[in-house]
Amino acid sequence: MSKAITSREADYSQWYNDLVIKGELADYSAVRGCMVIKPYGFALWENMRDALDKMFKDTGHVNAYFPLLVPKSLFEAEEKNAEGFAKECAIVTHYRLKTDPSQKGKLMVDPEAKLEEELIIRPTSEAIIWNTYKGWIQSYRDLPILVNQWANVMRWEMRTRLFLRTAEFLWQEGHTAHASKEEAVEETLRMLDVYADFAENWMALPVIKGVKSANERFAGAEDTYCIEALMQDGKALQAGTSHFLGQNFAKAFDVKFSDRDNKLEYVWATSWGVSTRLIGALVMAHSDDEGLVLPPRIAPLQVVVVPIYKGEEQKAAIDSKVNDIIKELKAAGIRVKYDDSDNARPGWKFAEYEMKGVPVRLAIGARDLEKNVVEVARRDTKDKTVVTLDGVAQYVQGLLTEIQQQMYNKAKDYRDTHITPANSWDEFEKLLDGKGGFIAAHWDGTAETEEAIKEKTKATIRCIPLEGEKEPGNCILTGKPSAQRVLFARAY
Amino acid sequence: MSKAITSREADYSQWYNDLVIKGELADYSAVRGCMVIKPYGFALWENMRDALDKMFKDTGHVNAYFPLLVPKSLFEAEEKNAEGFAKECAIVTHYRLKTDPSQKGKLMVDPEAKLEEELIIRPTSEAIIWNTYKGWIQSYRDLPILVNQWANVMRWEMRTRLFLRTAEFLWQEGHTAHASKEEAVEETLRMLDVYADFAENWMALPVIKGVKSANERFAGAEDTYCIEALMQDGKALQAGTSHFLGQNFAKAFDVKFSDRDNKLEYVWATSWGVSTRLIGALVMAHSDDEGLVLPPRIAPLQVVVVPIYKGEEQKAAIDSKVNDIIKELKAAGIRVKYDDSDNARPGWKFAEYEMKGVPVRLAIGARDLEKNVVEVARRDTKDKTVVTLDGVAQYVQGLLTEIQQQMYNKAKDYRDTHITPANSWDEFEKLLDGKGGFIAAHWDGTAETEEAIKEKTKATIRCIPLEGEKEPGNCILTGKPSAQRVLFARAY
Repeated sequence: MSKAITSREADYSQWYNDLVIKGELADYSAVRGCMVIKPYGFALWENMRDALDKMFKDTGHVNAYFPLLVPKSLFEAEEKNAEGFAKECAIVTHYRLKTDPSQKGKLMVDPEAKLEEELIIRPTSEAIIWNTYKGWIQSYRDLPILVNQWANVMRWEMRTRLFLRTAEFLWQEGHTAHASKEEAVEETLRMLDVYADFAENWMALPVIKGVKSANERFAGAEDTYCIEALMQDGKALQAGTSHFLGQNFAKAFDVKFSDRDNKLEYVWATSWGVSTRLIGALVMAHSDDEGLVLPPRIAPLQVVVVPIYKGEEQKAAIDSKVNDIIKELKAAGIRVKYDDSDNARPGWKFAEYEMKGVPVRLAIGARDLEKNVVEVARRDTKDKTVVTLDGVAQYVQGLLTEIQQQMYNKAKDYRDTHITPANSWDEFEKLLDGKGGFIAAHWDGTAETEEAIKEKTKATIRCIPLEGEKEPGNCILTGKPSAQRVLFARAY
Repeated sequence: MSKAITSREADYSQWYNDLVIKGELADYSAVRGCMVIKPYGFALWENMRDALDKMFKDTGHVNAYFPLLVPKSLFEAEEKNAEGFAKECAIVTHYRLKTDPSQKGKLMVDPEAKLEEELIIRPTSEAIIWNTYKGWIQSYRDLPILVNQWANVMRWEMRTRLFLRTAEFLWQEGHTAHASKEEAVEETLRMLDVYADFAENWMALPVIKGVKSANERFAGAEDTYCIEALMQDGKALQAGTSHFLGQNFAKAFDVKFSDRDNKLEYVWATSWGVSTRLIGALVMAHSDDEGLVLPPRIAPLQVVVVPIYKGEEQKAAIDSKVNDIIKELKAAGIRVKYDDSDNARPGWKFAEYEMKGVPVRLAIGARDLEKNVVEVARRDTKDKTVVTLDGVAQYVQGLLTEIQQQMYNKAKDYRDTHITPANSWDEFEKLLDGKGGFIAAHWDGTAETEEAIKEKTKATIRCIPLEGEKEPGNCILTGKPSAQRVLFARAY
């Protein structure tokens, strides 16, 4: 194999980086903390984006586009939101370069082109959007506004990792405006369900729906709901958030509507987002030491066909048969590639497509052709079978569905066996340093206790689960009463 | 009608702004020179983007994503390109805000968070992309690279207009790398053809393919090819460009490949782009004094159905019939809306959908229902016909095709009758101030003459047409010999 990757056991973090780089999902760039999303990684993102976009539209949302830059005075209008993001802002201060008189061929910032007011590259768009909504909303007839934006955003992180935490990332951000609190809360939860549906049914990624503690809440939100996933190293990853923003942004930007009784009220808001971070989650949840393992529904390439031949005559016979198979697969809506390039041997190709996580590989040689069969290898289990060429498209279609389901089941089994109750501090610490995963423990509900636990263990409250039994008990650290167990974990 | 718009005759420029704002395509924003693309405008852009994206993929291209920010040292590497864009650059100098001690609740740029090297918000991405390609290209086997990016870019323009010239805009930029000059030139022309195909067959916008004079060339290109369209006020608009970049960027970023003979050579490059500016062209080419006129193939909404009724009983009967029609239309892949909202009268709705340029309107009342007919109004000609309800979907489908074709024909007739030869300076000036449009005139091929003509008349050379006769003559200004006529016009 041309590209050796570090095993999970040897170095999980290096394994992840190897997969992203050698699987050709992304590349480091010349810009600190920013990555290049390579064509293969971007094709994956396109499939995810298109599926999500359809789900948003099916739930009544439309897309729009708002400016990249936010004037500082707007940015600081909602104080908590501004405070939350202030330390991570890229700031535009000038609008022109000029020739540097001291260095031939070089440019310098033109000091005379200083902006009167600094502009912030959006770390999130509530401010610019709610400032716009002010002009769109007068009456209850203008509500709800159900808008989504696909965009790049920038958060100046000090420690970055490909996909998981980058200074610039791609995401979607929904921003909705409503006439009542009930409707806004309903929207917040509807979009949480859309995210969970997408994660589970497209990414094969089981998630737990919950609400964040006050400490972990989005800056400016009344409540932050989330979906939490579990990675193979036992660490959690927040895969999406949906915020009930109350009237905070309406008040900050003075957005009121006259209701049916002609009374002026502040508008209710939600926002919700998922990002290219999901690709990091996808990689870490399913892949193995041979490379990526991608769920068929979003894999850029679902099937690869590799010919095995000696000489032109064998090649021609295989080509002719494969062309029929490809036609059939394409007609069934399957993303398939015939790799008959002559610059690599079949074994090298096998390893390459394993690295790239292509769900199904068909290999066909001269003897297979005689027998009217093809070898089918699945990426997730590495099982190989020989099937007859008649009806191979139908077989492959069924197999893709099965792989999708089994990848989900496998991840869910792992996740379910890694939600462990802890009933004492001792147990809690042992679980964290040993088995890992989610620890279901009681918590007294205070920010102080949460902080103390985080300081001692680096574990945070991932969420207060929405589903499951609500059994009362006593806080794992303070012994004070607790209404229900919450989920702790170390997290990405 | 609720929203009066200025007529073209009264004030063409105001007419355009009225259409964009009242047609709900876009809105001004709080950020100087930046616009908000509203849901209706964005849906139009999505249709344009999806059609183009498919054309790019059908010609072998893949999408990727590169960083928004370009370090100054990379930006200035290709000197001509840097010089061309230096005066329009938004520059990030700091990465953190902090609490302003002198103003409660306000933030200020943290002077301690100054970047060592300034970052430029991409005005175009050649620099960051060619710096990346350096790592991707070693051998001829790595070529060609056929990558496209959909992105936002920023050019700090002093005078901005919605869609036509905004500080931030959305676009696609293709960046390809090739092993030979011939292949790169071929790619440049292939993409020019793709743009022309898209403009004519999707936007119903006839264009002239040509090459730019040196003055109008993209900064850093060897040759800039373009498609030029004509607006209803007789001004030209550059609708897309495709650049042959030679080895300029490969040399600036030291990108070499070993060819089949194992010799190191610089890589050949192209880049090509179209932007949200196309929406401005679309508006100005087709619309009238009642509002937008959108070509069916990209119209967000192709058909609107408006019921005309008195009382619930009539409404119910119409609803039931309309539901069948809607189902049929949707099954035929037509984007249709039934507007049975009760907060506006039919006449108001008619005007509203005329304003928004919806190609076909169906109006159906109780008497129509009795007669089993529906009134069909087309937006482009405002013709109305009554057709029987049986087979209405098929009728509408045919009508949409016809509208698309006739919109193109009408624009082409206008364009063709506004390409006028001028054989003397006098004629040239008269045409410019009178009839407008493209003026086909001889030019001596020098930058000086081009500049002089521009200074005297504000007309520029839009392109040296690729097609048509190449008849020699004498320069309109200097009388020096000229190999062929070029097209002059005042332009957006």
